[in-house]
This record gives sequence, structure tokens and C-alpha cells, in this order.
Amino acid sequence: MLKLYSFPGTVTLACQIALEEAGADYELVQVDFLQNAQRQPDYLAINPKSRVPALATDRGVITEAPAILTYIAHAYPDAHLAPFDDPFAFAQVQAFCAYLCAWVHPAAAHRHRGYRWADDAAAIADMRRKAPENFAEAAQLIEDEYLAGPWVMGEAYTICDPYLFTVAGWLPRDGIEMSRFPKIEAHFARMRARPAVSKVLAAAAH
Amino acid sequence: MLKLYSFPGTVTLACQIALEEAGADYELVQVDFLQNAQRQPDYLAINPKSRVPALATDRGVITEAPAILTYIAHAYPDAHLAPFDDPFAFAQVQAFCAYLCAWVHPAAAHRHRGYRWADDAAAIADMRRKAPENFAEAAQLIEDEYLAGPWVMGEAYTICDPYLFTVAGWLPRDGIEMSRFPKIEAHFARMRARPAVSKVLAAAAH
Repeated sequence: MLKLYSFPGTVTLACQIALEEAGADYELVQVDFLQNAQRQPDYLAINPKSRVPALATDRGVITEAPAILTYIAHAYPDAHLAPFDDPFAFAQVQAFCAYLCAWVHPAAAHRHRGYRWADDAAAIADMRRKAPENFAEAAQLIEDEYLAGPWVMGEAYTICDPYLFTVAGWLPRDGIEMSRFPKIEAHFARMRARPAVSKVLAAAAH
Repeated sequence: MLKLYSFPGTVTLACQIALEEAGADYELVQVDFLQNAQRQPDYLAINPKSRVPALATDRGVITEAPAILTYIAHAYPDAHLAPFDDPFAFAQVQAFCAYLCAWVHPAAAHRHRGYRWADDAAAIADMRRKAPENFAEAAQLIEDEYLAGPWVMGEAYTICDPYLFTVAGWLPRDGIEMSRFPKIEAHFARMRARPAVSKVLAAAAH
């Protein structure tokens, strides 16, 4: 059975929703960041990067949210979560995931995890101040350019949707009102109405 | 014909090598960063993120290096640049590309482009100082965990290889001796010996 290594509030949520959408059999394993469990030898043996998510399969571990999401789409083709038969359409899915992974997520992370990129307290404070500007600018670009509607890629629901849902959920936490981005807000509500999402959120609330 | 929008010293190099490996017919279009061309309306119409690379195809533009690389592998299957028939192996390729795109590349970019994440000059200077530490730490992780040899994924040459070659080429620029990472250094030399790489580097030198 698949094991998804997780911690609340992380991008693992996107992967868990995708597993539910795919109807996959999986176990959620909490990595206790509050106890620094991600840096202990038993977790480093699973993911040497000391991050979540990580997905343990019977062939080995997959790390990085875009790779895990793509794997779920690939391994459960009946769920039609990515257009593997169309190189251009598949590239658009990959590009959206890469933008969230490589720009939007790190941009937001500069608010909470500035210590990754600087040591000086004043520098970390300056990053913390600026991070919501970058996050909001990226949300605006998604709103204007990359959210076709009703789903990210248009009529087809793909792995981009739980990924956007997860990242958009961080906007209020960072002091950015989601209502500034009407398409993202409507997408967020549309996602919450999906049974897979309700199930994951209900389980997380317990 | 494909058009690859490029600027020297960027990750576009990886995409260009992949196009050569695939035997694709393409045109290289320089976006003059020195003249801020990436922020002019004609380029923003191509890539609203004002970055390179961007690959214009007859169906539209693809952005983000991992997506462009994946597209090339997908659209030119005879070149066997990614294992589309094996979800787990393909996920490993995606995970490697995502790590370079989302962690290693931004970690290095904090040396030259700290203004993206802070405004204060002292903060930018502190990021600049710390960036090579993060870059070297990531290179060590690749050396220890993710470079199977002779190619990144083992016996199969994939899109991971030109991507690693490109990013590893930035180590000396950032004051990090590549010889600290013998496997990466040997991979770099192995890449330079490939005809596709020689051709791209020779063209860039003119």
C-alpha cells in the first residue's frame, strides 16, 4: 500500500486529494515537524531532503509534489488526472505545477522560512515583509493568465487543481484576501464541493 | 518550427541541448536581458512571467524548464529522453527536475537575484553570502543520493542530464569548486563529450 508522508499545512494536501480522486489505497503517515522528526535518521532514510511530501511505493520513494502528483495521474489512468496522450497539453500541466513548485511556493515560504536563505535577523524580517507582495503578484498572474476555468486547464480536472487549491489556501494565512482574485476564489469553492476534498478536509479536522 | 527564447547563462541551455539530442528543428531567439527585453510587451505576450526559457510551438507557448524538457522528450519519443511507459521511473525523472527547478536553482539565484525576495540592501547582501552554502549543500545531496551514474538515472540518458549539466556549470561562477563533487564533475565531463552538447557550446561561443 502507498504511504504518503505528511504534515498539516504543507503541500502534501494536494497529493492526498489526488490520491482520493484516483481512488488509491494509501496510508497517511504524519512526520512530526514540531519534534523535528523530518531530520531524524529514520525519516532521512525515506527522504534525504528532510521535507514532505514523500510517497513510498512498492518500488521506492517519490519526492517533490509535482512528481508525486504526476505519478498518481500516471499510475491511475482511469481517473484522467493528466493528459498523457497529448504532449502539448501535458506540458501545460507540467508548467503550471512547476510554477507553483518553483516560484509561488518558495515566494510564500520566504515569509515563514527565511532562515533557509539568510542568517541575519534583519534580513529574515525583510523577506518576511516582502513575501506577501510576491505571493499576491503570483496569484494575480494565475488569475489573469493561467486559470482557464472552471478548472485550471479548462474543462478537464487535473492534478493542477488540488495543487492550486492547496497553495491558494495559504493566501489568508499570509494576510492576502482571496477575494482579490475572483477566479481563484471561485475555483477554491468549486474544489471544496468535491467529495474527495471534503473527505480529506473532514479527516484532517479530527 | 519551434522557437526557443533564450539568454546566455540561463537554464535555457538545458532545453537547447535536449532539442539537439532529440534532433528537433528549432530556432534560438535571444531575449536581451541587458536591455530588459523580457519586460517589454512583445515578450510578455509570449511569456507573462518575463523569464526564459519559453518554447513556442505551433499550438502555443510552453514555459518552465521541466515542462519544456518533458515536452521535448514526449514529442520526440525516438530520442528516449524520458521513460513515459513506466510511471515510477518517470516520477523519478520528474522529481529530479523538480528539485533542480524548485530548490537548487532558486538557492543559487539568491546570490544574484536577492532583490526578488527582499528590498533592503543588507538583506540582499546576506542572501548573497549564504547562497553558495545552500547551493553546495544541494550539490552534495545530488552527489550522495541522486546521481546514479553514468547518467543521473543510471544507464539511461534522460532530460535530467542536460539539466544537471547546466546547473552544475554554475558552481564555479558561485565560487564552488566542482572537484568537491567527483560524480558531478565526471558527469559534467561526460556531458561535454556528447556531440549535442559540443554543438550547442560551439554555437554559443560565436
